[in-house]
Amino acid sequence: MIPIVCIVGASDSGKTTFLEKLIPELSQRGYRIGTVKHDAHGFEMDREGKDTWKHRKAGAQTIAISSPVQIASIRTVEAEMDLGEIAGRYFWQEDLLITEGYKRSHYPKIEVFRKVVEAAPICGASDNLIAMVTDDAVDVEVPVFRFSQVSGVADFIEERFLKNRRKRRILVNLDGRRLPLKDFVEDFVAGGIVGMLSTLRGWKSPKKIDIFIRQED
Amino acid sequence: MIPIVCIVGASDSGKTTFLEKLIPELSQRGYRIGTVKHDAHGFEMDREGKDTWKHRKAGAQTIAISSPVQIASIRTVEAEMDLGEIAGRYFWQEDLLITEGYKRSHYPKIEVFRKVVEAAPICGASDNLIAMVTDDAVDVEVPVFRFSQVSGVADFIEERFLKNRRKRRILVNLDGRRLPLKDFVEDFVAGGIVGMLSTLRGWKSPKKIDIFIRQED
Repeated sequence: MIPIVCIVGASDSGKTTFLEKLIPELSQRGYRIGTVKHDAHGFEMDREGKDTWKHRKAGAQTIAISSPVQIASIRTVEAEMDLGEIAGRYFWQEDLLITEGYKRSHYPKIEVFRKVVEAAPICGASDNLIAMVTDDAVDVEVPVFRFSQVSGVADFIEERFLKNRRKRRILVNLDGRRLPLKDFVEDFVAGGIVGMLSTLRGWKSPKKIDIFIRQED
Repeated sequence: MIPIVCIVGASDSGKTTFLEKLIPELSQRGYRIGTVKHDAHGFEMDREGKDTWKHRKAGAQTIAISSPVQIASIRTVEAEMDLGEIAGRYFWQEDLLITEGYKRSHYPKIEVFRKVVEAAPICGASDNLIAMVTDDAVDVEVPVFRFSQVSGVADFIEERFLKNRRKRRILVNLDGRRLPLKDFVEDFVAGGIVGMLSTLRGWKSPKKIDIFIRQED
């Protein structure tokens, strides 16, 4: 549903600093950007003593806090959530999801590389590397941008993921994993569901339809 | 999909303190509890200087951070998200959603009341009040529990919302608002969708099916 591109690189290679320039560049072009940070160590998002912190401490599996300007949630999980499920669950309105990290995912990657930090790039030929950002001389077969070429990287992402993109009409997740659908099957399934729902009282030709089905054992 | 009960009361009436006892009581009975806190003033969830904080500051509309034990997200919104949409978006796995606040919603409410804080209860007859927690003498037509009767309140909630509950098979949101479905229509729609999807390659009789459809203008 939402295209995903991963910004990867060794620790301290400059991923966050580069993202701090890339996000506004893409936002200014009118795209709604979402980001996911991969955290291997365990982060602390809430603050001790806050009501939401107390709710979690008391055993709430998921907490949310909602205000007129933002909404936040924290969920306890038993295993790391799949990046595809994260995209489907949390980014229903964005045009592009940029990750910081997720080197081991199969999504397209842009590596941020500085020789002073790491001797060689961390991505190999099998890593779905689509571009590199570096000021060092590198021998790779993908487009290379300098750290200052933020708008060049934005052009590249726009061209590849955002322009002329066939608007995906339907995303189906089965137990959190995306069911691959060919274009004509997509049309068939989406058309069938919309046809069925549109006969019901309460239908108002919405832009967004979200359906959640739970089957018992 | 998920039952919602609102814990309301004047500021400083003891809502959080009561929730800190009620949540573990319900969790120990095997229910997965979610909570939502209503915040009128604007909260600060992330910490200045963190990578996710930098992503938001750079203009990301939604950020998430994912680890093997928890996942958190913060979304910028233009208006406060409807409680029903919050329940559908963020609480797909919980058995019960308890809110702290949301006095103005139409969901069932339990008021926490202390005369030393507020002269009279804040909920009137038209507020869908279903119980009250107080150590003071009150003249109400709903069950009244003392602050110490945590397991009594848990029994009441369990009986009313969690036991013998027909497992909802399908939830349909149109532009974020729930489409009301009668039982037989629910079965018809869920059955139709499952029937259509089960003919596709990749089907494996999942427990959860999530479908997201976007229609253009």
